Amino acid sequence: MKDFKTTIGLAALLATAALPALAQDAPAAPEAAAAVAVPTDVAFIFNTLLFLIGGFLVFWMAAGFAMLEAGLVRSKNVAMQCLKNISLFSLACTMYYLVGYNLMYPLGNWSIGSDETGGYLGAFGVAILEAVGVTSDAVDDYSYASTGSDFFFQVMFCATTASIVSGALAERIRLWPFLIFTAILTALIYPIQASWKWGGGFLDAAGFMDFAGSTVVHSVGGWAALAGAIILGPRLGKYAQGRVVAFPGSNLTLATLGTFILWLGWFGFNGASQLAMGTISDVADVSRAFANTNAAAAGGALAALAMTQIMYKKVDLTMVLNGALAGLVSITAEPLYPTLGGAILIGAVGGILVVLTVPLLDRVKIDDVVGAIPVHLVCGIWGTLAVVFSNPDATLGAQLMGIVIVGIFVFVVSAIVWLILRATTGLRATAEEETLGFDKAELGLEAYPEFTKL
Amino acid sequence: MKDFKTTIGLAALLATAALPALAQDAPAAPEAAAAVAVPTDVAFIFNTLLFLIGGFLVFWMAAGFAMLEAGLVRSKNVAMQCLKNISLFSLACTMYYLVGYNLMYPLGNWSIGSDETGGYLGAFGVAILEAVGVTSDAVDDYSYASTGSDFFFQVMFCATTASIVSGALAERIRLWPFLIFTAILTALIYPIQASWKWGGGFLDAAGFMDFAGSTVVHSVGGWAALAGAIILGPRLGKYAQGRVVAFPGSNLTLATLGTFILWLGWFGFNGASQLAMGTISDVADVSRAFANTNAAAAGGALAALAMTQIMYKKVDLTMVLNGALAGLVSITAEPLYPTLGGAILIGAVGGILVVLTVPLLDRVKIDDVVGAIPVHLVCGIWGTLAVVFSNPDATLGAQLMGIVIVGIFVFVVSAIVWLILRATTGLRATAEEETLGFDKAELGLEAYPEFTKL
Amino acid sequence: MKDFKTTIGLAALLATAALPALAQDAPAAPEAAAAVAVPTDVAFIFNTLLFLIGGFLVFWMAAGFAMLEAGLVRSKNVAMQCLKNISLFSLACTMYYLVGYNLMYPLGNWSIGSDETGGYLGAFGVAILEAVGVTSDAVDDYSYASTGSDFFFQVMFCATTASIVSGALAERIRLWPFLIFTAILTALIYPIQASWKWGGGFLDAAGFMDFAGSTVVHSVGGWAALAGAIILGPRLGKYAQGRVVAFPGSNLTLATLGTFILWLGWFGFNGASQLAMGTISDVADVSRAFANTNAAAAGGALAALAMTQIMYKKVDLTMVLNGALAGLVSITAEPLYPTLGGAILIGAVGGILVVLTVPLLDRVKIDDVVGAIPVHLVCGIWGTLAVVFSNPDATLGAQLMGIVIVGIFVFVVSAIVWLILRATTGLRATAEEETLGFDKAELGLEAYPEFTKL
Repeated sequence: MKDFKTTIGLAALLATAALPALAQDAPAAPEAAAAVAVPTDVAFIFNTLLFLIGGFLVFWMAAGFAMLEAGLVRSKNVAMQCLKNISLFSLACTMYYLVGYNLMYPLGNWSIGSDETGGYLGAFGVAILEAVGVTSDAVDDYSYASTGSDFFFQVMFCATTASIVSGALAERIRLWPFLIFTAILTALIYPIQASWKWGGGFLDAAGFMDFAGSTVVHSVGGWAALAGAIILGPRLGKYAQGRVVAFPGSNLTLATLGTFILWLGWFGFNGASQLAMGTISDVADVSRAFANTNAAAAGGALAALAMTQIMYKKVDLTMVLNGALAGLVSITAEPLYPTLGGAILIGAVGGILVVLTVPLLDRVKIDDVVGAIPVHLVCGIWGTLAVVFSNPDATLGAQLMGIVIVGIFVFVVSAIVWLILRATTGLRATAEEETLGFDKAELGLEAYPEFTKL
Repeated sequence: MKDFKTTIGLAALLATAALPALAQDAPAAPEAAAAVAVPTDVAFIFNTLLFLIGGFLVFWMAAGFAMLEAGLVRSKNVAMQCLKNISLFSLACTMYYLVGYNLMYPLGNWSIGSDETGGYLGAFGVAILEAVGVTSDAVDDYSYASTGSDFFFQVMFCATTASIVSGALAERIRLWPFLIFTAILTALIYPIQASWKWGGGFLDAAGFMDFAGSTVVHSVGGWAALAGAIILGPRLGKYAQGRVVAFPGSNLTLATLGTFILWLGWFGFNGASQLAMGTISDVADVSRAFANTNAAAAGGALAALAMTQIMYKKVDLTMVLNGALAGLVSITAEPLYPTLGGAILIGAVGGILVVLTVPLLDRVKIDDVVGAIPVHLVCGIWGTLAVVFSNPDATLGAQLMGIVIVGIFVFVVSAIVWLILRATTGLRATAEEETLGFDKAELGLEAYPEFTKL
Repeated sequence: MKDFKTTIGLAALLATAALPALAQDAPAAPEAAAAVAVPTDVAFIFNTLLFLIGGFLVFWMAAGFAMLEAGLVRSKNVAMQCLKNISLFSLACTMYYLVGYNLMYPLGNWSIGSDETGGYLGAFGVAILEAVGVTSDAVDDYSYASTGSDFFFQVMFCATTASIVSGALAERIRLWPFLIFTAILTALIYPIQASWKWGGGFLDAAGFMDFAGSTVVHSVGGWAALAGAIILGPRLGKYAQGRVVAFPGSNLTLATLGTFILWLGWFGFNGASQLAMGTISDVADVSRAFANTNAAAAGGALAALAMTQIMYKKVDLTMVLNGALAGLVSITAEPLYPTLGGAILIGAVGGILVVLTVPLLDRVKIDDVVGAIPVHLVCGIWGTLAVVFSNPDATLGAQLMGIVIVGIFVFVVSAIVWLILRATTGLRATAEEETLGFDKAELGLEAYPEFTKL
């Protein structure tokens, strides 16, 4: 307990120390000369290429979530976890095509609200790409990038949000209700709230800042997971006789691999969220995002390393992995303005928060199998708040407004959906099935048929 | 049985429903203005970069095949499967350098035939790159891309073809005859038939369309595997006493990882097959290829998910993984012209075909360990045929011509090679070795020495 | 023994045969016309993009080392190996930011020496990136690339060096002394010697050639590992009763995956070391580097395949994996000038060297768990020497000078640090802890809690 207080003190100290270091590295150029040197067609190609590279990197995060979660569940639920991950990704891509994309980017065609005052509900309709062989006079936006590349990039963000949920609810939610929730999340919940910021809606108009989605993506996944975890209840035996029973992950190399995959994918997640690299200014900013993203992940991992050593006298690998992810989530709202040192500290605070929050969740008996809520929700909030330390245009009020409104919307709507599903299809496997494990009970196979001794 | 009929009906229905949706999203621009805005040197750099990015992504597919196959074989053959995969890749790269590249791209130097009437056999000689520090006046093709990048991209396609074979024949073919076949496949069989289409040969002249290789790559691997599987015979005990005995894969997380790796690599496979991104038109088409490739994989996975639920009342993870791959193969012949919705449907038909074909192969006692023949051959054919639904320049006659001619050539030549190998080196391990497993019998080690309980 | 001599003879023969084939493919263009066609801003963007792509690929190598090492240690030490890898990477990134980057690239601000005569010690200070939204008149070097991208790329090389050490010393060195060494290696040892070549120091002035770091990265990791392995001593029971006891790796699929990951990352490692792709000449050279890197890896794998078949009558998967890595290290000093055939041979000699060196290390009782010293040190030296076969500007004297000076510096300083650590914190776990395994003894968990039968 004394250690606990020491570490909280340490965390506060670190956070305070970080503040002055968060300003950007050097004064900005006074007045930018017009960058006439890059032909518009070339800039269009560069921007499109940025989305394609960023998109395939964010795609790769789907594999990262799958491996992280498959490594952190018990072997009797591993195949189901793999199945949920590839299925949710496929479903997210389909729903985002059918509804999500135009809901999120109404381009002025708001169903409720307008571009002038900020919109609340986007447009309905399937995503439509530019024609094959489109030329400069026919592209949707000559000053931007190909619509195909934009869709490809954005669909990956939608899928990422859904991936966050699957880990928290693992080992007890049945496949089909989970997939129904995923469909609603990716068709409606994610795109609608994302439109408020990235579609030019009312949160954007209010000055809310979220560069790559600490709030818009990560906290959304976290809120949906939190609502689900509460309504679903903990795994059988997790909080037996008032104690927290550890259910060790079955394969920590997979969890490590998943973390490295996510780290890699995050370069695309944050870097390509600059949305352009057709000027020196843009590509240099993309570079800052890459370097800072990496620095924050390193800071998060090191902070969790130190914290677990101090608090428990033993380093905890899964905490270090989650620490790296916490650093990544924390820098996501603002990967441009912090210095490298600031990014390390922002990430380190994220890592500390995860180490402190994981036991708190257990204390209130919210069972989050992989630590998704500490990583994506808590650090999503922290990262969104941290924008005010480095970005001169951010205000604490607008940041809080975004966090709270998105949080209430997503938590309430998610809770309603989860409750409806519980009342209709049901959410949980039977106790017998859960004890046997999903792989045998629902799928009729085993992930490691020749290995497990249990 | 009734379910079986229902699902076939469903499949037919879906396929029919897909047809009208397959046309492209919007009318093409009437007449393209000359794209003068991109300097030729810049276009050259973009094109080269596309090949480098595409090439490393397709390289990554080699790891995907290795993981997929290592996950789907029994643990006693896992190390051998890893060894075969890294060896076949290395051998393919070497043979393609020595013979394959110039056979495939004779650039007018046909040994049999000519550019005018279409060629039949390319040129012999090792691949030669441009000199170090080459300048615009000395590059092989100033309007295209660096030869080094072109070679790097194309060698990966050749290796992919060989990777397809290794999975189908796993757990019973010995290492060295397999590698000898691989050498012949990658030096001669693949490049010769690929020259007919991509080297400007007679199939290209006849109007056969295959954007990224549903036929030229995937069906070729599938035909070679089919010939091998028939001549090699099934694994011991696979079809004992008239029943099909399931041999569960030893590690489904690896199989899942392999599928995600392949999915990622496919963006390079299809996207970079545009062969250029130095204009707005080209880079927008690359974007369409990325987005459609992703959509088709999602469609394939979801279709297999639904089909196995309907047919077997249980979702089958390995079928869903193969469904995603089926979607990817199916869109490979034409990832540009379909709409996103069309791509989902083309992929979904692929996923359905896999679910229906896997049991059919077992019924005729063709033992395909990983489902390579349903995925790469059946869906390769389907994808090649599906081109006529969306690409206005494709004809059913030309597509059938390409499928049949390539199929006969590859199947017959492969069968001859397999038969010669069977008569000389022998193909199979002894029954004792096969029962013991290749890892102990041929390699003298185990992939998981501390895990397996058997 | 007779086989042993035969294979040495074969190796010598192959090496000799390779020499004439190593010259570049075609005569270089006589005099390059000024490449006026690429606007400077566009070249800047291309160069920056090259660093970003190269950087994320080299980042991925961290995952490759983690998987390779986790697969090659026994399951009782797997979680610790994962932890060491993610921790060392995070620490390397932090130290390189704090000290390393400016030590390595003093840009004229040498603490000892000068740009004119070549420097010996760089500048002290944290890395500082360009401001957000920087424009062409304010970038650090308008003719180069964004500083953020340069830092991002270079920090990955520093981390790679540290990754090499962790494998060699696995299964016996405790976490914290290892991390302290890592901090010194990445803050001081690596950057100082790297400045001698890549920072424009005295080795560069002396004509030493090392394109992407056969010496500067790989041999440095190898020398540090060698010093550590000697001072640390072998694992308990490794050389019991005068015999070499095999400790089989616990998971060869992971080791295979790690090798494929490293192979993929190496395209960035070597390709982006061209440091520019804003001209046709540069991008064509990047392409040569990609193609040759792939060819050398293939050559290394095939050579190890053939060698182990000849020497042991059994192919050894781990040797083939290390053979591929050996090929990669061997081509790293000069991936541009060799022909594709030359690259295959350079890689093949590397593969042969690994097969021959691994038993030699065991003979002198130096316990290198993953073969890092044969791969990175021996082949690092071979690759550095091989530059003289293909690059007309390289001299044997300058190459030897670089190898020896870097080797002495790194080995001596590393040994001093290891000895100080041994005398203060201690280096090794107790015999009880080592027998129990690090995962249970230091971390209190297991990587595969449900699998292992031991």
